Amino acid sequence: MGPHPAVAAIRLAVRRVLHDVLHDALVLSDGRTPPPDTTPRDHAREGDAPGPLVLVACSGGADSMALASALAFESRKLSVRAGAVTVDHGLQPGSDQRAAEVAARLTAMGLDPVEAVAVKVGREGGPEAAARDARYAALDAAAERHGAAAILLGHTRDDQAETVLLGLARGSGTRSLSGMAAVAGAHGRYRRPFLQIDRHTARKACLVQSLPVWDDPHNADPAYTRSRLRHEGLPALEKALGKGVVEALARTAELSRDDADALDAWAAEADPSVRDEAGELLCGKLYALPAAVRRRVLRKALIHAGSPAGSLFARHVEEVDRLITSWRGQRAINLPGRVEARRQGGRLVIRQS
Amino acid sequence: MGPHPAVAAIRLAVRRVLHDVLHDALVLSDGRTPPPDTTPRDHAREGDAPGPLVLVACSGGADSMALASALAFESRKLSVRAGAVTVDHGLQPGSDQRAAEVAARLTAMGLDPVEAVAVKVGREGGPEAAARDARYAALDAAAERHGAAAILLGHTRDDQAETVLLGLARGSGTRSLSGMAAVAGAHGRYRRPFLQIDRHTARKACLVQSLPVWDDPHNADPAYTRSRLRHEGLPALEKALGKGVVEALARTAELSRDDADALDAWAAEADPSVRDEAGELLCGKLYALPAAVRRRVLRKALIHAGSPAGSLFARHVEEVDRLITSWRGQRAINLPGRVEARRQGGRLVIRQS
Repeated sequence: MGPHPAVAAIRLAVRRVLHDVLHDALVLSDGRTPPPDTTPRDHAREGDAPGPLVLVACSGGADSMALASALAFESRKLSVRAGAVTVDHGLQPGSDQRAAEVAARLTAMGLDPVEAVAVKVGREGGPEAAARDARYAALDAAAERHGAAAILLGHTRDDQAETVLLGLARGSGTRSLSGMAAVAGAHGRYRRPFLQIDRHTARKACLVQSLPVWDDPHNADPAYTRSRLRHEGLPALEKALGKGVVEALARTAELSRDDADALDAWAAEADPSVRDEAGELLCGKLYALPAAVRRRVLRKALIHAGSPAGSLFARHVEEVDRLITSWRGQRAINLPGRVEARRQGGRLVIRQS
Repeated sequence: MGPHPAVAAIRLAVRRVLHDVLHDALVLSDGRTPPPDTTPRDHAREGDAPGPLVLVACSGGADSMALASALAFESRKLSVRAGAVTVDHGLQPGSDQRAAEVAARLTAMGLDPVEAVAVKVGREGGPEAAARDARYAALDAAAERHGAAAILLGHTRDDQAETVLLGLARGSGTRSLSGMAAVAGAHGRYRRPFLQIDRHTARKACLVQSLPVWDDPHNADPAYTRSRLRHEGLPALEKALGKGVVEALARTAELSRDDADALDAWAAEADPSVRDEAGELLCGKLYALPAAVRRRVLRKALIHAGSPAGSLFARHVEEVDRLITSWRGQRAINLPGRVEARRQGGRLVIRQS
């Protein structure tokens, strides 16, 4: 009798990612990219030298405990060493003790090394962003310290759906709808094997494996936007639109990411062709570009001139775009970061004061 | 004292569209496209010959009554003739009488011609789609009959937000998020002046102009997806994400439309370059395209081979894409419309059986 379907699903998801990690390690080590037609094979054989180290970032919650269990299981069958990091954010009394407990559970799974790392959460960007920044800094440091090839993150399809809706609320287009990447960070350090696995499956996998899980009270706190989305926004949307909403949002993320990547590449390629020898943007050439490409060229130029990406909204770029598409002798446009854009002699002049 | 701000807003929105209609009529009549740098001017002068006819599609609800009132007002200042069509869907007892009442109100506004057209709603695609199909067929016929240059539709920013969420629920990517176009149909016949106007403003404009409005009971019927979205889904989303959600969704529509247009253009341009002399698709060349462009080329090819666009989902195209990107000797893939795709000798062969 095979494992429970939920356990089989999480293991398969992790196995696929471990294959990718091994494949990428191989490509990095011999510098060749395999042709598209090759049939993948196991790069790992019993008796080989110990392979790359893969860490799992584990909060002790159901998603990352399921991930840790699958990593522990699959790593034994491949030449991958598997370890874990749990981050103590120090935001609740007794969080250090909880982190120690989680670390003990991870060790009991056979993961090695296992580390509990305490971080100090700042205030910049709000409580959620500050905790995230501190967490990733700690994970990066742990990866460096241990020479890890990858860090697995337990974000599920439900997390992805929430991220898409949060991006939608920003109204800043395709890139903001692309959610979390399956592979992210320098050299593809971060991997998210569970982006196609739903939260319910991860929880079930913990249950049938008798893994104790810890429910972060923050996840149910309506003070957090994500928590309100999870417990009120998404359920109401599912009630109105039907059960497939989470899946549709997750697929939207993937498609949007590919679309945004292609358009960014187009804009980067078009950029030199719309400038004069001095590097100034030519309005006539910009006008001839598709709107989607033109706005990306403009956004890039504004950021390059010193406008902070985080404060430069779609409506700013649109206003600059109207200097190109609806020229009526408008005045110079003031943008975040003391950047100014004006049209002058058929050129778009962007300067920081 | 000027008009109430709500009335000013709806009139400005209609004025802009009438200028566009006059501009396009001019372009069509002399065949030239004005250069981008020209300052727009009023093409209409008092004493000119009567200009093009613009019709408003009016249900008698607040949005389209506000639209009709703004059209009646603005057309007097430009050389535009303004008329109206109201469609009787025959779905409720007394609908014919209501249509006659609406027509009388439109005539009282000074619109001419005014027509009440009865249609027979079929069943294809569900009640909402069938009603929509019948309505647009009637509007098209009315435009032909009267030689109208444009038909104005009263869709508001709230309708647009709902449409984006409906598209999101399909999970089929950027095009499905692009909502309703400001200009649509053959020769840009349909125009939506209110896509930036919220429902509340339209209602307010009716109120302050003492225009009686009719509330379609369908709009509050939870049997309809759009109605559930309006009364439950969107409010819950606003509660979780904040008040700007409708605006963000409407902006997402605009940005997505431009992105989808640019990528469709790219795919159309790339298409001949990934085929051999016999027109067969070459896997190696397809592989080199960005995923977003490749999937669009594939989708187009599948539709061209006979797969119905409405049944061909993102997951179908993805599966065909894996013949290119993850070739492991997969079998032929069966697609809607008895279309089959398989990889053969470095070519992607797509056939209908």
